[in-house]
Amino acid sequence: MLTVLFAAPAGLLPDYETPLADALAEFGLSATIADESTPAAQIDYVIYAPTGPVQDFTPYRNARAVLSLWAGVERIVGNPTLIQPLCRMVDPGLTEGMVEWVTGHVLRTHLGIDRHILNQDGVWRHYAIPPLARERRVTVLGLGALGAACGAALAALNFQVTGWSRSPKSLPGITCLSGNEGFSAALAQAEILVTLLPNTPDTENILDSAALAQMPQGAVILNPGRGSLIDDTALLAALDRGHIAQATLDVFRTEPLPPEHPYWAHPKVTVTPHIAADTRPGSAARVIAENIRRDQAGEPLLYLVDRQKGY
Amino acid sequence: MLTVLFAAPAGLLPDYETPLADALAEFGLSATIADESTPAAQIDYVIYAPTGPVQDFTPYRNARAVLSLWAGVERIVGNPTLIQPLCRMVDPGLTEGMVEWVTGHVLRTHLGIDRHILNQDGVWRHYAIPPLARERRVTVLGLGALGAACGAALAALNFQVTGWSRSPKSLPGITCLSGNEGFSAALAQAEILVTLLPNTPDTENILDSAALAQMPQGAVILNPGRGSLIDDTALLAALDRGHIAQATLDVFRTEPLPPEHPYWAHPKVTVTPHIAADTRPGSAARVIAENIRRDQAGEPLLYLVDRQKGY
Repeated sequence: MLTVLFAAPAGLLPDYETPLADALAEFGLSATIADESTPAAQIDYVIYAPTGPVQDFTPYRNARAVLSLWAGVERIVGNPTLIQPLCRMVDPGLTEGMVEWVTGHVLRTHLGIDRHILNQDGVWRHYAIPPLARERRVTVLGLGALGAACGAALAALNFQVTGWSRSPKSLPGITCLSGNEGFSAALAQAEILVTLLPNTPDTENILDSAALAQMPQGAVILNPGRGSLIDDTALLAALDRGHIAQATLDVFRTEPLPPEHPYWAHPKVTVTPHIAADTRPGSAARVIAENIRRDQAGEPLLYLVDRQKGY
Repeated sequence: MLTVLFAAPAGLLPDYETPLADALAEFGLSATIADESTPAAQIDYVIYAPTGPVQDFTPYRNARAVLSLWAGVERIVGNPTLIQPLCRMVDPGLTEGMVEWVTGHVLRTHLGIDRHILNQDGVWRHYAIPPLARERRVTVLGLGALGAACGAALAALNFQVTGWSRSPKSLPGITCLSGNEGFSAALAQAEILVTLLPNTPDTENILDSAALAQMPQGAVILNPGRGSLIDDTALLAALDRGHIAQATLDVFRTEPLPPEHPYWAHPKVTVTPHIAADTRPGSAARVIAENIRRDQAGEPLLYLVDRQKGY
């Protein structure tokens, strides 16, 4: 009988209790879900969220792995008390939700849907024929599970997709660039830029004024990744001088985004409230249960975090 | 040497002259593009648009076929002076544009993007997790070239797609229904309804009050097909009583839609100015040139209109 600590906010437990029990049973595991009242030394696995009760992993000396409920692990990856393997969440539901947010907002931008939503004034404005997706260049920064899935979906919709990652990758239908030199080329292609990089010291403010200046005049930015990727002051300046035409931002350094933040009132910015990718209990529970099964069977863990890289 | 009459508005000729010359050459045809100053009896093929100069085809007794620049042929199909084969335009560029409009507006609806565009007021509204596309049912009425392409793209985005056509069809990834009985079932599935039927006597007002009542409470309608498909009075009533939550309409009985039409001011209606699918000169010219080549080679014409069915 395994003991699995649910170290996410207690308010989430009702959403996860049944899915976790079902998933553990599905993978042939006999396990109980515990809270912090169970002695720490009895815990075999820790299900973790950064907003949960556990920040000091020292007492969990017998735990074999820490399994994050969240895709982003920036708040735990540098934790010196964590000596166990750490796994990110790669939830197929989360990935699907992200693909839907990204394809929806890329098409919204591509088609210029806002001008119709905002101008229902009786004037029949038949603009020039817009380009087809096959004539529109979209760059995805970050080719992890989320970036690769979004890039594939955009390529399937005929967009000219360039992807960028720190280390070289190869993905069908996507022009893959990497490294510092590739970064400039990726930005120069970006009529529409989608930022899906992890939050690491290397990616902090990666979209600064120099990077924004390398993007084409009139480019549009969609950030469903991490708030830290963007130098907010530089972006506001680029929007004000018209170099960047529009930004749709789902993630911010401070969330909820404070009502007085200039993004809310800026006519070229759309704020969405961190909705691009929500973890879905049913599919997330299965990811966790499968990893426990793999570990118990001596198989390698899925989605293991490289603590040096930070993701 | 063939003589091809360009019987679309003269204003379109500059857009088409070079693409047509290139496409005719590409298909190995020696042809000149003529206007109405050329004697009618010398014309071998007629390129037609309903807004163009030719409505009486009697003088074109030697023309072997009439090739429409438009997908919709309702204004010519009943023309008694037309005795030649009539071909619709099935422009790959037009189809791609339609797929992009439909997927963009389905995702806009699915994700509830409008509430973010229209509510940038500093309030962080983290609504309940929306369903994934795999949990969302979309019905496409009409499974011709456009409907089939849109259905396939929506299925590739994981939506649960039901398609309906008058005669039975089978398409991968789409639940295909047909006939009167299938029509009710297709409407009952339609959380989002996309109308891509041709304009025929059978489809006039096909979305009347009885049909709208068969749709689920809160359904959304997207009409990029034909204005005649919808009983406008019935739709406005269904929107007013909240049975239909929203409608995005690209086509209308009268275009431009008059400024005083209640659709413009209705808070649940988005009007777009007949932009879902524009014929693109480059790809359309190749379709016309290929059909001339086929006819000259004794091969059957593509996209031949069935004059009885009306499309």
